[in-house]
Amino acid sequence: MKDSGSCTLTLSCPDQTGIVARVAGLVAAMGGWITEASHHADPCQGIFFMRQQIRADSLAGGIGDFCRSFAPLARELGMEWQISDQRIPKRVIILVSGQGHCLYDLLGRWRSGELHMDIPCVVSNHETFRGLVEWHGIPFYHVPVPERDKTRAFSAIREIFENGKGDLMVLARFMQILPADFCERYPQKIINIHHSFLPSFVGAQPYHQAYSKGVKLVGATCHYVTPDLDQGPIIDQDVIRVNHADTPDHLVRMGRDVEKIVLSRGVRYHLENRVLLHGNRTVVFT
Amino acid sequence: MKDSGSCTLTLSCPDQTGIVARVAGLVAAMGGWITEASHHADPCQGIFFMRQQIRADSLAGGIGDFCRSFAPLARELGMEWQISDQRIPKRVIILVSGQGHCLYDLLGRWRSGELHMDIPCVVSNHETFRGLVEWHGIPFYHVPVPERDKTRAFSAIREIFENGKGDLMVLARFMQILPADFCERYPQKIINIHHSFLPSFVGAQPYHQAYSKGVKLVGATCHYVTPDLDQGPIIDQDVIRVNHADTPDHLVRMGRDVEKIVLSRGVRYHLENRVLLHGNRTVVFT
Amino acid sequence: MKDSGSCTLTLSCPDQTGIVARVAGLVAAMGGWITEASHHADPCQGIFFMRQQIRADSLAGGIGDFCRSFAPLARELGMEWQISDQRIPKRVIILVSGQGHCLYDLLGRWRSGELHMDIPCVVSNHETFRGLVEWHGIPFYHVPVPERDKTRAFSAIREIFENGKGDLMVLARFMQILPADFCERYPQKIINIHHSFLPSFVGAQPYHQAYSKGVKLVGATCHYVTPDLDQGPIIDQDVIRVNHADTPDHLVRMGRDVEKIVLSRGVRYHLENRVLLHGNRTVVFT
Amino acid sequence: MKDSGSCTLTLSCPDQTGIVARVAGLVAAMGGWITEASHHADPCQGIFFMRQQIRADSLAGGIGDFCRSFAPLARELGMEWQISDQRIPKRVIILVSGQGHCLYDLLGRWRSGELHMDIPCVVSNHETFRGLVEWHGIPFYHVPVPERDKTRAFSAIREIFENGKGDLMVLARFMQILPADFCERYPQKIINIHHSFLPSFVGAQPYHQAYSKGVKLVGATCHYVTPDLDQGPIIDQDVIRVNHADTPDHLVRMGRDVEKIVLSRGVRYHLENRVLLHGNRTVVFT
Repeated sequence: MKDSGSCTLTLSCPDQTGIVARVAGLVAAMGGWITEASHHADPCQGIFFMRQQIRADSLAGGIGDFCRSFAPLARELGMEWQISDQRIPKRVIILVSGQGHCLYDLLGRWRSGELHMDIPCVVSNHETFRGLVEWHGIPFYHVPVPERDKTRAFSAIREIFENGKGDLMVLARFMQILPADFCERYPQKIINIHHSFLPSFVGAQPYHQAYSKGVKLVGATCHYVTPDLDQGPIIDQDVIRVNHADTPDHLVRMGRDVEKIVLSRGVRYHLENRVLLHGNRTVVFT
Repeated sequence: MKDSGSCTLTLSCPDQTGIVARVAGLVAAMGGWITEASHHADPCQGIFFMRQQIRADSLAGGIGDFCRSFAPLARELGMEWQISDQRIPKRVIILVSGQGHCLYDLLGRWRSGELHMDIPCVVSNHETFRGLVEWHGIPFYHVPVPERDKTRAFSAIREIFENGKGDLMVLARFMQILPADFCERYPQKIINIHHSFLPSFVGAQPYHQAYSKGVKLVGATCHYVTPDLDQGPIIDQDVIRVNHADTPDHLVRMGRDVEKIVLSRGVRYHLENRVLLHGNRTVVFT
Repeated sequence: MKDSGSCTLTLSCPDQTGIVARVAGLVAAMGGWITEASHHADPCQGIFFMRQQIRADSLAGGIGDFCRSFAPLARELGMEWQISDQRIPKRVIILVSGQGHCLYDLLGRWRSGELHMDIPCVVSNHETFRGLVEWHGIPFYHVPVPERDKTRAFSAIREIFENGKGDLMVLARFMQILPADFCERYPQKIINIHHSFLPSFVGAQPYHQAYSKGVKLVGATCHYVTPDLDQGPIIDQDVIRVNHADTPDHLVRMGRDVEKIVLSRGVRYHLENRVLLHGNRTVVFT
Repeated sequence: MKDSGSCTLTLSCPDQTGIVARVAGLVAAMGGWITEASHHADPCQGIFFMRQQIRADSLAGGIGDFCRSFAPLARELGMEWQISDQRIPKRVIILVSGQGHCLYDLLGRWRSGELHMDIPCVVSNHETFRGLVEWHGIPFYHVPVPERDKTRAFSAIREIFENGKGDLMVLARFMQILPADFCERYPQKIINIHHSFLPSFVGAQPYHQAYSKGVKLVGATCHYVTPDLDQGPIIDQDVIRVNHADTPDHLVRMGRDVEKIVLSRGVRYHLENRVLLHGNRTVVFT
């Protein structure tokens, strides 16, 4: 597993000369063995982004020690930063509705160890996938989302998430619009897969919109959820070629393959702390 | 050359049982040797589309004879149809502004025989490419398009197109918005390359729009021009992967490669009579 | 479902003028409503290929009647042909070893109805996936394949396939080389997914070979199995971009996504009778 | 232009803790403003690779000064290294035979400033492109390569390259096999575009080989030339989807688009010192 045994330091700050030297110098001084390093200076905004993956066993004093040593530099350079112990799997709660392709895909990747996460539970507004989920040894919660009483449903989901000590919610084709206050409560903690190549075809039935427009490629977009419907920061996207003979039904089928792959990539990037935010744009260190 | 020596029959009509049998039967009865055949029945609209490529020398009586024999069947089935002699190259007038990548690309494909067309002239609102064009033995017309007198400019272009007996105008990154009446005069006779994956990023500076939005792929769209800006029927599209480190300048550079390829494909499909229209959607028999 | 309610006629024969007219004429004469039609004339070999998808309910006399009427024409034109009732799902036996990503993917597509097939059983040389398979209500057979006694193992598999009235075996990352006589017994009835872009990297550990060679794309190939290892007719292929930082482990992970998609596409093409053979090349009417 | 105004430091050395810190520290100490930085530690071989792009005007003492300060560290860490002034365009001699698509493409990119290089001359074993090249103001040398006297031809080419103070030879579809001693003389100084997805289809007529094999994608590979035919280190590759209906002629046409793009990318990477070598594998910092 890529990140087992690693700590990941991520940071952003105003750009200036010498940041890499100082951060790398400090990590080296503490014995940190960097196995993967990425940085990016945004020339338009003058902001510097960095991700360092450090062998956990090389930090003799552990993460606590590291933090104490790092804090003064971070303060001096005006950093937003965090260090994350990749040995502790993140807790991911999956939400799904009536279509199971993304759920199947995520469960398969979790079982094989490809996605390094715990799944405290799966939540759905349908009963469809209870059997599959429970067979995997994962609790399944059925939370109906009736049109006239969404508030209660979403407060139930919030409770499940909090009680499950969730780090991340993944909307694996969860076909309900989240209330604005719900989204605001969990910034960069909810990942959605939208079944179009955003910003084209926001909202409902994007494959039917794509068919009407006669586009020659359809796609999917994995993004963080914000109160703005389908407008949150984009983590990954991909497309597949279609043609005039593809009916909306075909587009739906072909699109599912793109959705699965794009969602799982986005989730992996998040689990491995590869995604940094900057306004509505992401920096993704792949 | 793919189409040298061929005639191309294209048609559309209300769908019903037996159309293929009747058309193929009639072509066979006249000795027509079909080298490539495509059809498509749109199940949503009940419309049937067909393209038959026939060896010209197999039609003993020539195209005139074919038309006389075919007309009654066409009438009976309510067809829109045409037969085109691919041995006669279409006359294509290229319009360009200050960026030459699509022009270079089209000239190269024309010289090598890949694009089977005549180029009566190139028109530009700049002098930049006069030398290159004239070296190729092609007349070059400089038509300035001043902000306050576009009417005169576009009537000059219309005159050049008509005098040159043009079949098609190709906007090879021609950075002027065509007047509505100009577009209406030439339905399915003007091909544009738009530097975004439509319907995303209509209008000016699409790469800058793409950068702001933080998309992970940028693209280009080849479409017929209609009075609706960037909304005409899409012939072809493609995309290329980008990331957070790509500035708008990078997107421009990377996008150029997509633009060239998508435009040249669209032009080739048109030259070979592979594009049929149906409302704002295309049927492209590749 | 695309093919529910359809019969599929596939044929190949020496090319000559008028085949389409005669076949389409005969289908029309029997009332056959063609919903999808494809043909291809191979200009190098002079062979004609055709696939017609006909609404089953439009053939008043049923398939038996159709066959009787069609046989004389087929004989006259020297056809190899068959007509298949798509309403009857094909019986597909899946073989798997220790890696489950293709199995998960196929089961998910089967459950959602995307792949129209029956799965009489899954066979494996490991016990790993018994639980998952049986949870889906599918019998699971553990057939060890010991190095020194493969003969017995493969005769057990043959028996399972014959008793299960299998139409197709799918090697979903089954990591055993099939004996030549086994392959010969089931021409065009065994589909394999090879984890490289063939003909590159035949045989074992293709991702490690790809890494050593330093290629910039890795891929997967879905093909019919013949006695020639990894040389059978190719049904579909795809690739994904990699770079110098991708270790063999990364290539394995990234390749899995390509394998799943390419295998499922190949299986679907086969189930829908879209694949015709011609020597070692396939004609795939997508 | 991406690299105008930059110096590029590239290096490789045995991996150990603290390299980034020491290099970045030294660059910072000299006032160097890093605009782009990449590194890669190969975990299989224990080798570290780095590329730093530094604003030239930030190095007060110039490159000479930098080298004097850097040399001791380089020696201590066992580096292979170089620093290259990107403001001085590299001198690129293009070799071409009878097909001009790559030549057209490179000239277009050179004219627009996309490829930052000088072209002292173009060499060809045919006269075909003299006019085009000379119109661009570039000298053109016709060097016939007769079957029975290749030695003389290649010593003429060597002389042209040396007299032209060439930094790089680009084989833009130059259809002659270079003698082994010629290749050995110019390691990492000759870039070729091979018209297949290597290692598939080495040698002559790769598109015909691809057709016979029935592959579903064809590609192109840009690589450094070594005495081993088509086996040199791969810089970039790409593919395009094809199907059974594509004759070898189609594959040739479709492949040309891939060749142009892959060659131009490879050349740009080389011009910007983005390619580091490690045995027969490349590290490409894109």
